[in-house]
Amino acid sequence: MPHSVSVFGSAGFTGALTARLLYRHPSLELRALTARSDVGRRLDDLYPHHRVPLELEELDLDRHADVDAAVVAYPHGAAAPVVAELRGRGVRVVDLSADFRLRDPVVYRQWYREHEAPELLGEAVYGLPELYRDEIRGASLVANPGCYPTATLLALAPLARAGVIGEVVIDAKSGVSGAGRAATDKTHFVTVDENLNAYGVPRHRHIPEIEQELAALDPAHPDVRITFIPHLVPLDQGELCTCYVTLTEPDAAESLEAVYAEAYADEPFVELTTTPPGVRDVRETNICRISVHRDDRTGRVIVFGAIDNLWKGAASQAVQNLNLMFGLPEDEGIGVGRTPAREALT
Amino acid sequence: MPHSVSVFGSAGFTGALTARLLYRHPSLELRALTARSDVGRRLDDLYPHHRVPLELEELDLDRHADVDAAVVAYPHGAAAPVVAELRGRGVRVVDLSADFRLRDPVVYRQWYREHEAPELLGEAVYGLPELYRDEIRGASLVANPGCYPTATLLALAPLARAGVIGEVVIDAKSGVSGAGRAATDKTHFVTVDENLNAYGVPRHRHIPEIEQELAALDPAHPDVRITFIPHLVPLDQGELCTCYVTLTEPDAAESLEAVYAEAYADEPFVELTTTPPGVRDVRETNICRISVHRDDRTGRVIVFGAIDNLWKGAASQAVQNLNLMFGLPEDEGIGVGRTPAREALT
Amino acid sequence: MPHSVSVFGSAGFTGALTARLLYRHPSLELRALTARSDVGRRLDDLYPHHRVPLELEELDLDRHADVDAAVVAYPHGAAAPVVAELRGRGVRVVDLSADFRLRDPVVYRQWYREHEAPELLGEAVYGLPELYRDEIRGASLVANPGCYPTATLLALAPLARAGVIGEVVIDAKSGVSGAGRAATDKTHFVTVDENLNAYGVPRHRHIPEIEQELAALDPAHPDVRITFIPHLVPLDQGELCTCYVTLTEPDAAESLEAVYAEAYADEPFVELTTTPPGVRDVRETNICRISVHRDDRTGRVIVFGAIDNLWKGAASQAVQNLNLMFGLPEDEGIGVGRTPAREALT
Amino acid sequence: MPHSVSVFGSAGFTGALTARLLYRHPSLELRALTARSDVGRRLDDLYPHHRVPLELEELDLDRHADVDAAVVAYPHGAAAPVVAELRGRGVRVVDLSADFRLRDPVVYRQWYREHEAPELLGEAVYGLPELYRDEIRGASLVANPGCYPTATLLALAPLARAGVIGEVVIDAKSGVSGAGRAATDKTHFVTVDENLNAYGVPRHRHIPEIEQELAALDPAHPDVRITFIPHLVPLDQGELCTCYVTLTEPDAAESLEAVYAEAYADEPFVELTTTPPGVRDVRETNICRISVHRDDRTGRVIVFGAIDNLWKGAASQAVQNLNLMFGLPEDEGIGVGRTPAREALT
Repeated sequence: MPHSVSVFGSAGFTGALTARLLYRHPSLELRALTARSDVGRRLDDLYPHHRVPLELEELDLDRHADVDAAVVAYPHGAAAPVVAELRGRGVRVVDLSADFRLRDPVVYRQWYREHEAPELLGEAVYGLPELYRDEIRGASLVANPGCYPTATLLALAPLARAGVIGEVVIDAKSGVSGAGRAATDKTHFVTVDENLNAYGVPRHRHIPEIEQELAALDPAHPDVRITFIPHLVPLDQGELCTCYVTLTEPDAAESLEAVYAEAYADEPFVELTTTPPGVRDVRETNICRISVHRDDRTGRVIVFGAIDNLWKGAASQAVQNLNLMFGLPEDEGIGVGRTPAREALT
Repeated sequence: MPHSVSVFGSAGFTGALTARLLYRHPSLELRALTARSDVGRRLDDLYPHHRVPLELEELDLDRHADVDAAVVAYPHGAAAPVVAELRGRGVRVVDLSADFRLRDPVVYRQWYREHEAPELLGEAVYGLPELYRDEIRGASLVANPGCYPTATLLALAPLARAGVIGEVVIDAKSGVSGAGRAATDKTHFVTVDENLNAYGVPRHRHIPEIEQELAALDPAHPDVRITFIPHLVPLDQGELCTCYVTLTEPDAAESLEAVYAEAYADEPFVELTTTPPGVRDVRETNICRISVHRDDRTGRVIVFGAIDNLWKGAASQAVQNLNLMFGLPEDEGIGVGRTPAREALT
Repeated sequence: MPHSVSVFGSAGFTGALTARLLYRHPSLELRALTARSDVGRRLDDLYPHHRVPLELEELDLDRHADVDAAVVAYPHGAAAPVVAELRGRGVRVVDLSADFRLRDPVVYRQWYREHEAPELLGEAVYGLPELYRDEIRGASLVANPGCYPTATLLALAPLARAGVIGEVVIDAKSGVSGAGRAATDKTHFVTVDENLNAYGVPRHRHIPEIEQELAALDPAHPDVRITFIPHLVPLDQGELCTCYVTLTEPDAAESLEAVYAEAYADEPFVELTTTPPGVRDVRETNICRISVHRDDRTGRVIVFGAIDNLWKGAASQAVQNLNLMFGLPEDEGIGVGRTPAREALT
Repeated sequence: MPHSVSVFGSAGFTGALTARLLYRHPSLELRALTARSDVGRRLDDLYPHHRVPLELEELDLDRHADVDAAVVAYPHGAAAPVVAELRGRGVRVVDLSADFRLRDPVVYRQWYREHEAPELLGEAVYGLPELYRDEIRGASLVANPGCYPTATLLALAPLARAGVIGEVVIDAKSGVSGAGRAATDKTHFVTVDENLNAYGVPRHRHIPEIEQELAALDPAHPDVRITFIPHLVPLDQGELCTCYVTLTEPDAAESLEAVYAEAYADEPFVELTTTPPGVRDVRETNICRISVHRDDRTGRVIVFGAIDNLWKGAASQAVQNLNLMFGLPEDEGIGVGRTPAREALT
């Protein structure tokens, strides 16, 4: 019998895509879609290409919480209270917001606001399966990572685990879907088209999330401080993080390729390439494509991580987490088909 | 001494571009910019690439109407009252809205609303210089044509004048700047990017304007009825009208090329080409590029008209009209430079 | 036991996509990929996003023809001889070229060249399943339709069958993938970006194909002559055909919506909408999305047909045809998932 | 009497744009266009939007070198011999290639090839007017900078002069016109559209040029070694360099804004902004737009430099250099009009 799932906040880009993936999932049953705007419209009216013939409903916890699991796609701050309600009713939750990603409520307050459900932080698991697969399996509350942290952490994890990361600069680039559905001057086609610019300089909110996880991977360097600058590029879905790493010692990590190959040997959704990955290579997949290079002149290591910000950066990673939570095959409903993707590159 | 001009409604795309062109015009002096939103902001803050260091001001007719001429870039319906005020104070006006394009207030009401200044319709001149150059010279009120009518009428005028147009279908395509500055689901980058669709089917408001002028060009066919379908394409500035004409008799207009060459021999802003024009060829110019083709299998004639919807379709054509109204060189401030553009193609 | 299939000409866009679809098809086994360029490279090196870890091989009919079926993705003219070889060895063929679409070799010669395998024209079936489903089921040679004819014929078939089509003008718009993989001035990013223009004016080779099939649908009007003008738009995959139809009598086809609803009631890959379809709605699907509108002012009917030119316009339609030829579920390997797509719109 | 100029190598993007700018220059006379491809075609056939009605001619030094100055737009390596010929005939030269940018022929050989005219390196001046204005005034041979070095050096010069640059990472992003006119898989629309990737990792040829000039600005740090990674983004013209600088001491350069404001107070083509610049803001201008930011958490300084790669990154900067060489107003033929651009931002 399939596990039932509701999506809370289905009118936005990531909630709607999660609904599409769940609607066609072999072992999960999409039960209901709630939304804070567009109530009464059908999702296939709002997003024809998702082809989900279900209506967006106003939140009614008594009805909507009668499920095995919920995906919450609310804005930061708005998510915590709903997640608390759902957990109070025993519903397992994957939360797409930032509300449960930071383990320390003091840090959360510095970058966001006062936390409204700090009592749940203890049970929340950071939902990057490549780092926390076992913990996610038993989790009742999974904090789905931010898109930039997903690409960055997968790009840097092998170096961090090896304890060789000294300084880090991350230059990130994202397609416009990452800015969300809100229609503003900044997302107007005429603003973005043939344009390119940085934003959120120099304190983007994904910084503490990345630092927290780098520190967890490399406990000997708990105070890692990164510079992280995101840019908006004129495309829809796709995100590339270019990571510049100064090693703790120049000779550290002699065979970078070997370190990465070993780290990701069994990962179904990580592809290693020898040439810099393009975001088009991972469009509409749950795959993160990574290449690592050494700049012999400066000793720096450059690592690229490319994902689809709406898929691996949000919705399909949420499904990957649900699969793990319910003991299902990890790639169910989000695989590329017959062949393990990574075979293609060996 | 330069003639002074104010722009009313400078916060939108066409008003702002008009301001940019006037700000650098050798013989016109941009006096003031009014706006209904963003009052107090500078135009070069709103549109850095226009580089106009002037502030948007709240409308104050006593101050702003103390000029030789005004360009009004208000929405349809909102323009008429302001134009009436300005005319009442003796200010010459180029109006970018549709309010004074249709000579018959009954037709205006059918397609728009009740007209609020019908008494001015008699003095309004349709501001397509290639058709009404002499009338514009002496005009006090010029109704700047719509973008689609501009490209369509320039493409069809030689055939209409020759009295050979039978049936007409116009398939139009426009870049997103034509949809204006309002940030909506329809102008969101993610909606438009990699997309293409028709809109305003089948009754777009530019239809009566095109029909009025075709009838004026060909009085023997006063009841011409066109089918006109516009499409939105994923680019910023640029508009292409593909016109399909069934001739009144198959053998009419034997040498199409000769008809067009003669019609536009002295036009500084019309370029004739033998291959279908691309909108990129006219980007950021006041030029309309036209090619005419005969489909021998069906007898139909196909005419393409390409313009920049913000330039020849609005702002630079407004300046062309101001130049005519003030007896200035027609291409002052909007020319492509040293050489008449059309020389380049002979 | 799965049926074995080889793809001949896998280095181009449509051949490569066909390979991807077959590689993951539950009941078909992709046996080999041949190519005329890039021999020795793997397909996932050439097109990473297809994730097909197979090598492109030089043609060796003895080996490659040892299959149940072949998809031939050669250029027009080059396909006929290979198809003849394959048929001579008893291999069932879906041909993506134009070589077997036109039933009359005289017409083929007028628009293409002398036909090199006219003896096979008799057995070739035009592979538009919505029109020739039964014939395709038993066919040994299926001529996969052109992309423009696919969208146009699906848009016009209900009217043609009703015998009400008088005059037809088709204004078509295609993304750049339709121009194929050849790198030329015309497909250079800088040429296409922010541009828009017609091409192939006025004699595009898809004209006789469309006319042949319209005549077949409406035998009372065997001499239908269409005007067809394609345009290149700055996007990758997607194609929209805007069809302008003058009815044989103004009152013909009173309830257009009912005619279309009935015509496509059971079609798994046709979606009817009330608003003009966008190409984004059908991207990476085998779906044709159609809307029909009446212009009361002129009596004309406007029909829009939107497809993905590489999918329904080529590769996925080829798989649809293979499914029919082998008695498999028609949507196997190319469906959108759990729900019949069309349900979503009723 | 205007100074006569020929453009050598006019068929490519930068040569053609140089021709357009010179064709309309008030004090320079465009004499002839040579090309290695497309000989006999007119430039306005190849590039309609440039509207230069001149024919591309095969090189004939006796005729073409009879000018006051030449702009050479040949590929690296091919330029040196032609420049040597021109200098031998006394023609002043602005060379768009890399052949005379590096002062040390040994470095040139390491990154390019054996230099074919090393005897001219002594007279060559690096043509970045903001750094070498006086030297350019008297120069007979000016090496026009690369596009990336132009944006990077303008972004970093104030810090370099202050001697506070420790480590530098430059993450650069360029539109596709930077890849030149050659039609290849890499410049095909379908490859670039909706894509984003790094290239030239980790040894792009602009590195030694940037390092040479940083060392010249800060002689106390002659061995500066940078990491420089360029990325291709899906737009036509525009380039953004994001520079990450570790200062030599954390407290160095206390008021960054003041340092930059002073450095560029009198520069006609540098604009300082407080928000990160977009490439759209400088499209089709000779302007470099810069913002500088301090990341207090890490002590790093982030500087953005945005230019139009074909204009300030090549063609309009060549004209700026010609203006200086001939004692003309520096912005003649390339200004934005009536107002100094920078006024707009103070």
